[in-house]
Amino acid sequence: MSGGFTNTRDLSALLDPKSIAIVGASPNPLRIGGIPLANLLARGFPADRILPVNPNHAEIQGLRCYTDIGALPWAPDLAIVAVAADAALDALDALDRLGARAAILFAAGFGEDPTPEGLARDARLKAFIAGSAMAIAGPNTIGIGNIATGTTASFLTTLGEPLPAGPLALIGQSGNSVSMMASDARDFGIGMSYFVSTGNEAGVDFAAYLDHFAADPATGAVLGYCEQVRDGAAFMNAALRLRDAGKPLFLAKVGRSEKGREATISHTGAMAGDAIVTQAAFRQLGIGMGRDPAEIMDLTRLWNTGARPARPGVCIVSLSGAGCAFLSDMFDDAGVPVPTLPDAVQARLRTAIPSYGMVSNPVDLTGNVINDMNHLRTVLDALIESDAMDCILIYIMGSLLDAAAPILLEIRQRTDKLIVALDPSNAHSAASLRAAGVEVFADALRAVSGIAAYLRWARDMSEDQWRPVAPQAIAAPDWLERLHASGRRSLTEVEGKKWLAEAGVPTVEEVEAADEATALAAAEALGYPVVVKLSSPDIAHKTEIGGVALDIRDAEQLRTAFRSIVARASAERPDAEIRGVVVQKQLAGQDMLIGITRDPTFGPVMTLGLGGVLTELYRDIAVRLLPVDRRTARAMLEELTCAPLLTGFRGRPVADIDALADAMATLSDLALASPHIAELEVNPMIVRPAGEGCFAVDALVRLAD
Amino acid sequence: MSGGFTNTRDLSALLDPKSIAIVGASPNPLRIGGIPLANLLARGFPADRILPVNPNHAEIQGLRCYTDIGALPWAPDLAIVAVAADAALDALDALDRLGARAAILFAAGFGEDPTPEGLARDARLKAFIAGSAMAIAGPNTIGIGNIATGTTASFLTTLGEPLPAGPLALIGQSGNSVSMMASDARDFGIGMSYFVSTGNEAGVDFAAYLDHFAADPATGAVLGYCEQVRDGAAFMNAALRLRDAGKPLFLAKVGRSEKGREATISHTGAMAGDAIVTQAAFRQLGIGMGRDPAEIMDLTRLWNTGARPARPGVCIVSLSGAGCAFLSDMFDDAGVPVPTLPDAVQARLRTAIPSYGMVSNPVDLTGNVINDMNHLRTVLDALIESDAMDCILIYIMGSLLDAAAPILLEIRQRTDKLIVALDPSNAHSAASLRAAGVEVFADALRAVSGIAAYLRWARDMSEDQWRPVAPQAIAAPDWLERLHASGRRSLTEVEGKKWLAEAGVPTVEEVEAADEATALAAAEALGYPVVVKLSSPDIAHKTEIGGVALDIRDAEQLRTAFRSIVARASAERPDAEIRGVVVQKQLAGQDMLIGITRDPTFGPVMTLGLGGVLTELYRDIAVRLLPVDRRTARAMLEELTCAPLLTGFRGRPVADIDALADAMATLSDLALASPHIAELEVNPMIVRPAGEGCFAVDALVRLAD
Repeated sequence: MSGGFTNTRDLSALLDPKSIAIVGASPNPLRIGGIPLANLLARGFPADRILPVNPNHAEIQGLRCYTDIGALPWAPDLAIVAVAADAALDALDALDRLGARAAILFAAGFGEDPTPEGLARDARLKAFIAGSAMAIAGPNTIGIGNIATGTTASFLTTLGEPLPAGPLALIGQSGNSVSMMASDARDFGIGMSYFVSTGNEAGVDFAAYLDHFAADPATGAVLGYCEQVRDGAAFMNAALRLRDAGKPLFLAKVGRSEKGREATISHTGAMAGDAIVTQAAFRQLGIGMGRDPAEIMDLTRLWNTGARPARPGVCIVSLSGAGCAFLSDMFDDAGVPVPTLPDAVQARLRTAIPSYGMVSNPVDLTGNVINDMNHLRTVLDALIESDAMDCILIYIMGSLLDAAAPILLEIRQRTDKLIVALDPSNAHSAASLRAAGVEVFADALRAVSGIAAYLRWARDMSEDQWRPVAPQAIAAPDWLERLHASGRRSLTEVEGKKWLAEAGVPTVEEVEAADEATALAAAEALGYPVVVKLSSPDIAHKTEIGGVALDIRDAEQLRTAFRSIVARASAERPDAEIRGVVVQKQLAGQDMLIGITRDPTFGPVMTLGLGGVLTELYRDIAVRLLPVDRRTARAMLEELTCAPLLTGFRGRPVADIDALADAMATLSDLALASPHIAELEVNPMIVRPAGEGCFAVDALVRLAD
Repeated sequence: MSGGFTNTRDLSALLDPKSIAIVGASPNPLRIGGIPLANLLARGFPADRILPVNPNHAEIQGLRCYTDIGALPWAPDLAIVAVAADAALDALDALDRLGARAAILFAAGFGEDPTPEGLARDARLKAFIAGSAMAIAGPNTIGIGNIATGTTASFLTTLGEPLPAGPLALIGQSGNSVSMMASDARDFGIGMSYFVSTGNEAGVDFAAYLDHFAADPATGAVLGYCEQVRDGAAFMNAALRLRDAGKPLFLAKVGRSEKGREATISHTGAMAGDAIVTQAAFRQLGIGMGRDPAEIMDLTRLWNTGARPARPGVCIVSLSGAGCAFLSDMFDDAGVPVPTLPDAVQARLRTAIPSYGMVSNPVDLTGNVINDMNHLRTVLDALIESDAMDCILIYIMGSLLDAAAPILLEIRQRTDKLIVALDPSNAHSAASLRAAGVEVFADALRAVSGIAAYLRWARDMSEDQWRPVAPQAIAAPDWLERLHASGRRSLTEVEGKKWLAEAGVPTVEEVEAADEATALAAAEALGYPVVVKLSSPDIAHKTEIGGVALDIRDAEQLRTAFRSIVARASAERPDAEIRGVVVQKQLAGQDMLIGITRDPTFGPVMTLGLGGVLTELYRDIAVRLLPVDRRTARAMLEELTCAPLLTGFRGRPVADIDALADAMATLSDLALASPHIAELEVNPMIVRPAGEGCFAVDALVRLAD
């Protein structure tokens, strides 16, 4: 994690400049050097604070034009650099000499261009930034706009039109994504504070803008498109500042798929991180996630209703039995519960719905309501008082939605629940419903998908929130320090478990035995059946060389196992130090894997899964940033598709989930307290039936270089 | 499977009546009895062939009105029955006496109404239908329309407007669903042949209409919304007739989720079948599936381009790097490959795309193309000649799509590939592109989802197609017949495997042993390690009572196992006949489960999976209607997420997939040839490494009652 320097630069000259030079200004208001000037003039930026630069013109768009940067009469706050890549680099040098505070570089051909020329320009730009105090936006950006002040330093023509000022700060690592969001915001009537296309972020990066928005009084929510988190620590800090300020951060984060990652590398040179870790980190940071800029706008529209549903489910209300059915299926696909309503609520609904209409949820109003819309009021009155869900989706088409609108507006005033209308037929009342906090969707797939994403976010925000607080101190033992200092980079199984046991993680009873007699005595003491494993500091993967014997039931089998394990290890790995075997009590229970690694962007993360090849194939793992406390540990377990194995599925014993959660929290503390630990994996952690604990049976510990 | 009777009725009086009575006709053209008359008159149905019936009026909407059915001057082809449920039943009796050939019942309050009154009406209606030759549509329908003839026997006002005639037959088990599809078809400019709201289908059912459309020359494609397949055999026949006629059948089939099923039961009394079997059956029958009526229209729009892509992948082309990235992720979510283009194609693309644009797929044109749209032609010329994919999605917004439109139109003329444009900004050229076979979507999620569904359907249609042909005859053995005749309803493990072995399914080597000595001799002959299992005709689930001992390594262990198994079985099930044990050779390999059951709607189906509790939790199974041939067996395996376990994942041996496919095909033949078999499950089928075969280790066979 680096780049703290650029993130601490003052962005006021970029985002709220009082004067602007345009290098490469054009008299043609449709060209890249002409549009920004036309936009600024159209939006009322003071003409006497604009300095066009172009050697070929004495006057441009009515303003005096200067031949070069050296000829400018004073230093502007911001320079819009609208010339090609090489000329842009020269311009930066001149602007820095003049004393300009910030610059926006439109040109492409830097870090995203894999040719030698592109890479050389990128290096020169980075060297400039390191040696200058200027705040540099881009390169490869379509620009920046401050909507309230009309400072539209961008070649996007849309920004020359009057746009409503308001709470949304738009930011994207792609010009197209921000312009799509800006068009949508305008169409849906939600005002904007800023418009930022970050480009390659050679200078000011995504996190720095977020940080600015967290403190900015005009900004109430941040919407973004993100290909790469460059500076993980700065990004996390900024996201937490936004969260603490009560400002949602909704991001379309691409690069989940291989081809998506390939596209981000090609597009802006971005390297998308591990998608599963990114997703976990975003949820813990309170970031709402969408698939594309349109879904980010859907999240924003739902946020803009003011409703903050804490419960996960939805109630479907429709005149259409078909709508009830296909919406139920679609919400199920999206993982959103459609909870059955309590009997008392159903009874109230029945007073307004004939016997052939459904009242359990989905709620099928039937055509009955067409004759008397008061039935809808009765239904909604009952639903908003129910605590079965905090979200109601009403599917009523066109003129019928217009007829229902007064009732929806009245009901919305009396509830904090999220009320969404679905109408593919463009009812006239859509705008007035939206303005009153009843959001209207035209497409079922978008409605379901947006509601699912919003409910997940709102629920995450309603729960205890993750913080990167320091864990309770657990000192790493002296011998671990000594081992690390001696150059050792991994612990043996026995060393690892000894350390875990010292730190309070329950481990399986075991005895290290250098010879057969010791092994026999150990097995007698532990009680058969036992497990016998190779003990060697040099061999991590014991199973692969026949170094593990399970279900040893008597002395005869133990002797055979001892000899065969030692003999095979010596034969296969003559270089390895063989210390004998470890004899363990064989435990029945559910095997789980708990791993801790360090993500290069987000820091230490914990993974929970069943372990084994099926977990890998089914990708059934839960991931969280550390610290993981007991509550989070339980939430991780609940997230697993295989969770029923621990909760009594098909007659299995209920497992000791308390013990598992305790062990996970302890492992989290341990990893945070021991910076030498690069990787820690307990596999298996055997979870016994409730009340009987869980036990680390094998542990792999790798130390950092 | 029943109902062949109703399905063979002549539907011409329903779908193409030459005369119509309206029972309950109303002078008010906005009421349920007035709209159909207004529609018919507006669409030019001959006024002298319409007979309004209403005791309160002498004339209605300019036509002479009759006081009751008995007063009608002649028998109409069709009667629209627009009166409430009880009156409707009386009207049917009168109409039948008069000699009417068909009737449409609008009223609700029959099978979908769970009250005693509703059920009584339903019974009376069904009795009427059984005793009459009339074709009855509904009840609980919004009606039927023949668009070409203007016969709009419906209270949907939209059908009174001029609608384009064309190839689409719309059919839905919900009025709202058909009316949504009709609006969409009109908006997208695709003409219709029929509009059918089937209602409760007490008389004419969904399959009967499909059958009619298969033979109807005006119909080129059938679009539908389906809650329940009532008559599986008739439905399958009709679907195959449509497939053979080259007419696609696109259906939104609801009831995949528990709440979706609940809604269908409430809505039309429909019982949705097993969702996984339904999905498998639909694919085998060539039915394209969508989630909601909007997705059915998306499928239809893509079909209407004329392109029939056989390859599964898509190429993404955009000016927006962000679009390239988020569309890649979204196609990955939808299971659509974004294949890397061959080097030669990439080289051609590079001549039109600068070094910072991506050419591997997704293809990032970069802003470069804005200056010269010929670059787009170069790119598309190369892509349409590539066999890496058969589908190209072009994401270009608004006025830029207008600028690109001439090139797209030209390219479309030279290729059979599916070309789709994505434009959220409503380009003016959308209609002309659409008319020329370049479909235009406004929303990325709908575009991706629709393309995924269409590619799946088109690919299914391009492959060898499933047919319910008779398998090669394998006679069930005499002893199986005798067993069945004797009242036995299950086979023992040994009987089952004996029968499988006779039919050519390889089974594990095993010996039944009534006493310890025989068991010992068997183990010696087979070679240790062996498996010992309880043999009892009365105990199906041996594991649960400790009736299986694995990994028996010597005589001592074998003796112990024999005694313990027999003793436990006798203790736990004193009523059961204990025949001793079965001694099997213990085989190493991948365990699989192959099951055959009989679906009440679609008949015999095969399920393939790993077996075990994780398969159940992860729902990782592949299902097909029988017959399953070797090619289908391989396709089933490839569909499993766990398939890599058999193909060398993480250093595992490649399994004998040929042998597994052979065994599956043989089991399919066997089940088809043996009607007594209600259920057959081989679990496990152990698949050995390639060349070493696969072996049924346990078999459960249940006979039909």
